Amino acid sequence: MSIPATRSRENTRARLLEAAEQLFAEVGLDGASVEAVCERAGFTRGAFYSNFESKDELFLMLAGRVAETRVNAVRERVTEITAEGGLVPGCDPTDLLQKVMDSGSDDRMGVMLMSEIRIRALRDAQFGAAYLAQEREMVGSIAQIVTDIVDAGELRLRVPAEVAGRILMIVWEGMTVRGAMAGHDDAQLRRAGSEELGRLVDLLLV
Amino acid sequence: MSIPATRSRENTRARLLEAAEQLFAEVGLDGASVEAVCERAGFTRGAFYSNFESKDELFLMLAGRVAETRVNAVRERVTEITAEGGLVPGCDPTDLLQKVMDSGSDDRMGVMLMSEIRIRALRDAQFGAAYLAQEREMVGSIAQIVTDIVDAGELRLRVPAEVAGRILMIVWEGMTVRGAMAGHDDAQLRRAGSEELGRLVDLLLV
Repeated sequence: MSIPATRSRENTRARLLEAAEQLFAEVGLDGASVEAVCERAGFTRGAFYSNFESKDELFLMLAGRVAETRVNAVRERVTEITAEGGLVPGCDPTDLLQKVMDSGSDDRMGVMLMSEIRIRALRDAQFGAAYLAQEREMVGSIAQIVTDIVDAGELRLRVPAEVAGRILMIVWEGMTVRGAMAGHDDAQLRRAGSEELGRLVDLLLV
Repeated sequence: MSIPATRSRENTRARLLEAAEQLFAEVGLDGASVEAVCERAGFTRGAFYSNFESKDELFLMLAGRVAETRVNAVRERVTEITAEGGLVPGCDPTDLLQKVMDSGSDDRMGVMLMSEIRIRALRDAQFGAAYLAQEREMVGSIAQIVTDIVDAGELRLRVPAEVAGRILMIVWEGMTVRGAMAGHDDAQLRRAGSEELGRLVDLLLV
């Protein structure tokens, strides 16, 4: 495939994903039909199906982008804090977590999208497998961040980084979902999440 | 209210809840309309609305029953194990957890119901508050079981029992949801949950 063709394909996928995100926020997952997404993005159904197998695949990719954005924001914040000299041997891990979470973006839209996607993953075995495969990648990224922090801070984990990453992800998710139920705004969602995660970080470290 | 009246009211509620559970398993939350629930239970809409304010209230109560059944099964199992002399100072907490979880009932229906209910709780602030209030009661029950085990086993928690209860509930839920996505049967769901919970129990104890 030529580079321009790849670019235009990437552009098409990006516009379809953006339209899907807008429609999800407006009418939810059931309301965001392939037709509506195509109309919003200004593409034909043919263009859609040459980029995505199904509506589920589109929203799984969208959920993946949301998760990736969250993890990347955390990674960048950790890099900043390291550059500022905030991540050194003997630093306070809970204080570090607070600084990291303050940059997080647990927006309600993301929480709703993830929750709706999980229902789909529960209803459809094939989609469930795809969701879990995507999540394993996210856990791997979190585990890498945990490892980097533990090494730089000369800290010691009581469980393998992979296990720590999975437990952190599940509790982060659990707290933000409950925060969203309680009607918390984005800032409150981050606070609630980081409070519980702070306790968990204490438990995870020797 | 006279006792017979109370009994018949309880009976009506029980039959409506049973019909709701059957219909949920068959057609899901959206498909289980008030009309369908009434027809299945053999009651009028009048009888329904004299017992429940709405479909959401009915399913929130059903979800509460499912959660209560799980927690009660755990409590009974702990009592059995104590009677068998399996809960004494110096006993292995992870081994104890294994024995407890083997009795659990993380059936797929329960996982699906809880996930659907959480979506409702995210969409509707008033329902969200009711869901969270019900969940706080569940966390309190789990915290009490944790306290009883810790006392009987002369163990020591690294966090307050309430915090331990909430983290255990969130990780239990997270693991069973993922197990259900992976198409695990009930026995596998329990195993996956207890494996992760075992690691968590080790972290929670001094």
